[in-house]
Amino acid sequence: MESVSERTGGPADAVVVGIDSGGSGLRVALARAADRAVLGRTAAPGPVRTGPDGICAEHFLESVLPAVAALRARAGEERPVLAAAVGAAGMATLGGELRAVLPGAFAAAWGVRGTVLAADAVTAYAGALGPRPGAVVAGGTGLVALGTDLSSWRRADGWGHLLGDCGSGAWIGRAGLEAAMRAYDGRRGGSAALLARAEKLHGPAAGLPAALYPRTDRPAVLAAFAPEVAACAADDPVAAAVLERAAEHIADAAEAACPPVPEAVVALTGGLFRLGEPLLAPLRAALADRLPGVRGVTPAGDPLDGAVSLAFSLAGGGTRFPEDPDLLRIA
Amino acid sequence: MESVSERTGGPADAVVVGIDSGGSGLRVALARAADRAVLGRTAAPGPVRTGPDGICAEHFLESVLPAVAALRARAGEERPVLAAAVGAAGMATLGGELRAVLPGAFAAAWGVRGTVLAADAVTAYAGALGPRPGAVVAGGTGLVALGTDLSSWRRADGWGHLLGDCGSGAWIGRAGLEAAMRAYDGRRGGSAALLARAEKLHGPAAGLPAALYPRTDRPAVLAAFAPEVAACAADDPVAAAVLERAAEHIADAAEAACPPVPEAVVALTGGLFRLGEPLLAPLRAALADRLPGVRGVTPAGDPLDGAVSLAFSLAGGGTRFPEDPDLLRIA
Repeated sequence: MESVSERTGGPADAVVVGIDSGGSGLRVALARAADRAVLGRTAAPGPVRTGPDGICAEHFLESVLPAVAALRARAGEERPVLAAAVGAAGMATLGGELRAVLPGAFAAAWGVRGTVLAADAVTAYAGALGPRPGAVVAGGTGLVALGTDLSSWRRADGWGHLLGDCGSGAWIGRAGLEAAMRAYDGRRGGSAALLARAEKLHGPAAGLPAALYPRTDRPAVLAAFAPEVAACAADDPVAAAVLERAAEHIADAAEAACPPVPEAVVALTGGLFRLGEPLLAPLRAALADRLPGVRGVTPAGDPLDGAVSLAFSLAGGGTRFPEDPDLLRIA
Repeated sequence: MESVSERTGGPADAVVVGIDSGGSGLRVALARAADRAVLGRTAAPGPVRTGPDGICAEHFLESVLPAVAALRARAGEERPVLAAAVGAAGMATLGGELRAVLPGAFAAAWGVRGTVLAADAVTAYAGALGPRPGAVVAGGTGLVALGTDLSSWRRADGWGHLLGDCGSGAWIGRAGLEAAMRAYDGRRGGSAALLARAEKLHGPAAGLPAALYPRTDRPAVLAAFAPEVAACAADDPVAAAVLERAAEHIADAAEAACPPVPEAVVALTGGLFRLGEPLLAPLRAALADRLPGVRGVTPAGDPLDGAVSLAFSLAGGGTRFPEDPDLLRIA
């Protein structure tokens, strides 16, 4: 990839902007190209609205432009922004308006010469592993695995709470609530411990459908029960079995995404993995089974770090990640 | 239960009305008390709207009153309607307005002296088995099992597509679509046959989330894929395994609902069981395991027949089914 600073003659010590737009909000970072120092980070109100044409570019800009202006003012940084990178959930399917509007809007606002538009899984990958072959599993309310050998991407799952996201927070929480209702009914596979925690959180079990189905954020409501499942796992075999099955599903996704190259590594990133050992212990075993010989590594950074590093790449020597219409576009 | 005709002195040969209100529509029957002959059946436009106060009584009556008037006119039947019985999905949780409004509205319209208000599972039970001990599994898009020893009811599942309805049409369809997406990703547990059928039905796999999540009738969209799973089961081990797990779940619900009395029988009713042998063969095996010695019987009638028989009971000698605030109320 041609460097923006070569192409435009911009100063190598200019600044870049990284943006991470997800279901739970929007985060922005300003960083200096010369030494890659992050000058500031901030959270903007979010999440960004989604309309019939996908992610609403106007709402996105209403959040991002003041946040960047504030970061630049706070850093006393008046040089133009050389490059920006945006990682957004649903960029491939819902990002048409963003792709059309953002590069021009960033150029007008900050003098940006190049913008990277990436799926959130790509910024998660870039933040966790940087430009080397492997696979990253990004887990939170949902779950997606992304892998690359640096010539193409391999994606697995990330299909949402009804079609997939197997092993995600919503998946674990849903399975835990099902086990609670089984106990309430006297069906096999029930857990009295999970029933007690569900009733503490949501009130009497018979009222759970009315508490869940009218909500528009059902996956988040389900995922909010995942920590209760993890908390029960030590003493409750049903809860432990839910986490073991989740671990198998997560390893399935990692296996499908990981490229068959000897130097591949795998990293787990996102809030899901803060469930701790009740999930991580069976997950290590499942990964060892699915991907023998593939080393697990600690993520170097988060998706916002990934967005910043993609912006650095665009400003500097060019990114080594493959471009892909659904995952990574340079505008 | 005291008989309405005894209580009111109404004629024993009067007529009764049975109503079955479900997710897919509303059906009404008019029947003669003297010989229990059904004089006519009709379908009213449905389903009945649900508002913030539950099932909308006004909309319900707008559908039911003209339908009954047409049935009476067609049968040349001018005698008053002695009793009515309504079975409605969500009667316990969403039926507050129906319970408040219907008895008075029926009395004003047809001279009705007594009304039975029942959960749809109760009319399914009454139609399938009549007043004898056992369990009925009602399966369609959702799934609920109801059992009784004639002194109290035992309910299992029926908690909707996220909390339960295990083994239902939505459950089978969802599991089938997950297997399709696994094949698309190259994850374990995928089925190329189910992927081909999903793409034939919904277009390219990557577009499936956009085809499903914006819909308000997601459970019905999922359930529409269940026949595809059944059609693949003979040649596809993944599809067969989905139906085997569904059969286990259905048997779990039947087991929890069935009363521990020697004369108990079990019946399966609803569109789910039209999936045929790919589901019924493993289900027979699972029921034999869960409920050894409990005889399976063919349902005598459908939920509308059940509503009519509840109305007969109220008009005549009284029902032997237990009253229950969530399941069966006499007004």
